[in-house]
Amino acid sequence: MPEASRAQIEALEAKLGYSFKNRYLLRLALVHSSAAPTTCNNIMAWVGDAAMYIVMTEEVGAKLGYIPVGQLSEVRKTLIGRAMCERYANHLGLPQYLVLGKSIMVQHNGKVSANMAAEMFEAVMGAIYLDSDLEAVRRCYLAHFPLPDDPLTLLKPDGTGGIPAFSSSPAADNPWE
Amino acid sequence: MPEASRAQIEALEAKLGYSFKNRYLLRLALVHSSAAPTTCNNIMAWVGDAAMYIVMTEEVGAKLGYIPVGQLSEVRKTLIGRAMCERYANHLGLPQYLVLGKSIMVQHNGKVSANMAAEMFEAVMGAIYLDSDLEAVRRCYLAHFPLPDDPLTLLKPDGTGGIPAFSSSPAADNPWE
Repeated sequence: MPEASRAQIEALEAKLGYSFKNRYLLRLALVHSSAAPTTCNNIMAWVGDAAMYIVMTEEVGAKLGYIPVGQLSEVRKTLIGRAMCERYANHLGLPQYLVLGKSIMVQHNGKVSANMAAEMFEAVMGAIYLDSDLEAVRRCYLAHFPLPDDPLTLLKPDGTGGIPAFSSSPAADNPWE
Repeated sequence: MPEASRAQIEALEAKLGYSFKNRYLLRLALVHSSAAPTTCNNIMAWVGDAAMYIVMTEEVGAKLGYIPVGQLSEVRKTLIGRAMCERYANHLGLPQYLVLGKSIMVQHNGKVSANMAAEMFEAVMGAIYLDSDLEAVRRCYLAHFPLPDDPLTLLKPDGTGGIPAFSSSPAADNPWE
């Protein structure tokens, strides 16, 4: 896909519920390494992962502080792991904005892989962090993906027991379902 | 060891270079689970680990942004891993303040294990985060443990090549040596 137009970037900001002071950060978050090995989203995804790690540490700790730390870590891992980040990305419709290199377009038949989608979500969170701060990441993440009433249900084998449906916008895919 | 006296807490604050608004947080950071299973330092260590994770993500990323993310992660892992946290704890003389339960005192012959020391350091960083913010953690960590000029040397097999010695206070054990 070519780089997003200004209108597309504005539409994405509206969907995220966050306006960038520096839109270049958001643009970078949409660039896969196949399109630009040195100016792509992978460092931003690395930062976004860390930002979510501390935000979810606090949120999960505040909600479930009475259970052993090992279980807290399991809940956190589920909430910010690759599989969930892919679902978050799809929920926000991020894959349509991914800037891919030609060779990988051919290789993947133009399809955005699960890993690419997950990395995009992490990168967008990283972009918000770098553009603003941890609180902005927290607000944006929780506005779209509030913690389930009982996050322990995330650890059930089917991963869905009792998890409330939610959607702040017309969802392509509800990550909790 | 019994709980630290007020004078000891003040001495520890001076050593850390950080004054707590809420000293109870620092006291909690010194309590091992053997002494108080429900009000011990392990959740605080969990938070401190996450706070260091994002701080070191930024610091390592800013310094070494040109290398592959996998290597950045290796450097970060080394900097905030258990082994290094133990050395940080010893450098700051934390183990002398650990509040241990009686049974474990007997079991360990009164000695603070490497894991306990590492957890104390994480918990103290967590206490600073909860008492203040990420910037306070960053300032305190970097004041004592500035990143080596070339953090890649941390990945050398001997773990020490070219790493500068540093010490902001009479060190019990310099973690970079």
